[in-house]
Amino acid sequence: MHAPDIHLLSVGTALPGPVVDNATLARRFRMDELWEQWIDVFVGTRTRHLAVDLETGEARYRLADLCEQAGRRALEQAGVEPSQVDLMVMGTSTPDQLMPATVNMVADRLGIDGLATYQLQSGCTGAVQALNVARQLLMTGEHTTALVLGGDVCSKIFDVETDLSTLSPSELVNVVLFGDGAGAAVLSTRGRPGSTKLVHVLTRLTGQGRAPGQQLEWFTKLDRDPDRAPSSEDYKAIEDSVPTMAAETLRELLDELEWEDTDLDYLLPPQLSGRMTEKIVARMDVRHPREITCVAETGNTGNALPFLQLERVLPRMATGDRAVGIAVESSKWIKAGFALERV
Amino acid sequence: MHAPDIHLLSVGTALPGPVVDNATLARRFRMDELWEQWIDVFVGTRTRHLAVDLETGEARYRLADLCEQAGRRALEQAGVEPSQVDLMVMGTSTPDQLMPATVNMVADRLGIDGLATYQLQSGCTGAVQALNVARQLLMTGEHTTALVLGGDVCSKIFDVETDLSTLSPSELVNVVLFGDGAGAAVLSTRGRPGSTKLVHVLTRLTGQGRAPGQQLEWFTKLDRDPDRAPSSEDYKAIEDSVPTMAAETLRELLDELEWEDTDLDYLLPPQLSGRMTEKIVARMDVRHPREITCVAETGNTGNALPFLQLERVLPRMATGDRAVGIAVESSKWIKAGFALERV
Repeated sequence: MHAPDIHLLSVGTALPGPVVDNATLARRFRMDELWEQWIDVFVGTRTRHLAVDLETGEARYRLADLCEQAGRRALEQAGVEPSQVDLMVMGTSTPDQLMPATVNMVADRLGIDGLATYQLQSGCTGAVQALNVARQLLMTGEHTTALVLGGDVCSKIFDVETDLSTLSPSELVNVVLFGDGAGAAVLSTRGRPGSTKLVHVLTRLTGQGRAPGQQLEWFTKLDRDPDRAPSSEDYKAIEDSVPTMAAETLRELLDELEWEDTDLDYLLPPQLSGRMTEKIVARMDVRHPREITCVAETGNTGNALPFLQLERVLPRMATGDRAVGIAVESSKWIKAGFALERV
Repeated sequence: MHAPDIHLLSVGTALPGPVVDNATLARRFRMDELWEQWIDVFVGTRTRHLAVDLETGEARYRLADLCEQAGRRALEQAGVEPSQVDLMVMGTSTPDQLMPATVNMVADRLGIDGLATYQLQSGCTGAVQALNVARQLLMTGEHTTALVLGGDVCSKIFDVETDLSTLSPSELVNVVLFGDGAGAAVLSTRGRPGSTKLVHVLTRLTGQGRAPGQQLEWFTKLDRDPDRAPSSEDYKAIEDSVPTMAAETLRELLDELEWEDTDLDYLLPPQLSGRMTEKIVARMDVRHPREITCVAETGNTGNALPFLQLERVLPRMATGDRAVGIAVESSKWIKAGFALERV
């Protein structure tokens, strides 16, 4: 098959409201200075943006609001009209509703219609999955211009009334770990001078026989199981597995590309938390590429993260530069990675 | 591009528990004979299968249970080993959890691992969307054998304790309209003597500026909006729009295929309810093909429906026969259709 090259024309992102630092969180949840220090040392995430108003608990932004903003920025930056978009693919773990899919509400707001739209239900690897589906659908020749979206409103499951001092450490950490946000990218079969090729994407389930490391439940009005936890994480399993999985993913991606470590100019590592990203990068053991990391400022924004990293790396890339992004989903242990090359 | 043909090797389905007829529903909800007659006349759905135990309200089947069963049947029928599957695509509007995606739990149960898996969040057109994504991903040459899944457990949002006599007609109808189920298909780039080609799939959002016809909410433990309806349908809009949209979709699909009405041997129309399907088929105004309809026996099983229809049509098709399936999603007004040809 002689498939066209796929070009990444632009990236746009959206973060809700003002920066929320750890001191603000500590004040809001009546935690002491020791707690703030604990976040610095063990989590390493300094700030994040939240869709929820911490004072009132009111949801100020929905996922569709953030995706609309990110999508509009990506389209404007690419100079692509809504009518030119003939494919939309979105990844999220926290859709606004189960129906309609949020991607279709975003399409309406952006004035995009009459096209195939897909929304992938996924956690930390959803944005890479969306890039992969869009890439492959463009390769068939049935589409030319894709708007790829990713985002999460993790704060939707926060209870701002909670007394944090009653929570276990594994519940407590969620309040500081996550942030809200969205991102978007325009992919096209038509390159431009100096555009960046999306040369390969890898997504691979590796969960055989393993318990989920992360679970997120949804409830009906009638739920008869009041003891079911809305979300749960096995942080021990995550800490044990994710660095190794990230290192394996990088290796598998480079092998499939027939690239050497020394070919890499930029590395976009998984962004679970400031500290975890340090551990992951150390475990990856590639010294040459410059690292593009934002989690300390944005928090773990789930499906928005690869776009936040792409937004940072694209302006820095020079002709011939190569970049690789890695994501790992601990829900059912999914490896994901993508590779870019500036032409 | 010279893409390979995509072959539909097998279809498997799964329906939970015993047949539930209208008399059983009427007894359970203490409704009278008039209500039973009303279902017959205005809905036209006689039976369905439910994942919930009507007496206890207990969920006896999860979506993963049904998808596992359907997937296993499809694999066995195709003579395909789990290790040969290198792509899974699933469509559902009612996943078991938001994370992990249900497709990954099903993969684990079937012994499928180390591959790309995708779960599309969608309503009545989700199965066709999944077929389309799988078809196009196979066309790229990066995959050879796909397990496509679709299913819904609509009864998850039922309240079996409800006093039906207090409900409005538009809420009441949901209890009789929906059924639970799952389906699966094996798609391959490698045909076999007498296999059926999936020659084309169309999925198209047409919701520009239109309010959703159907909404399904998910809730967190902390929801502060007790008045938000868990689900809502605009049956007036659905009745007005769906027959026309279905007829348009058939026309657009035939145009893209350059097929005439008279080329069609089988028609798989949308399956909203027995009565609605009659109206839709009348509106489509194609007299030649034989109609494959199952909604009166299965209820509206959402993402399982196209597989239930495919299971009925495949054994009937002879060499050269052509079949078309149409689905319409009223959430944000999505057209979908697919075309088969027996070689």
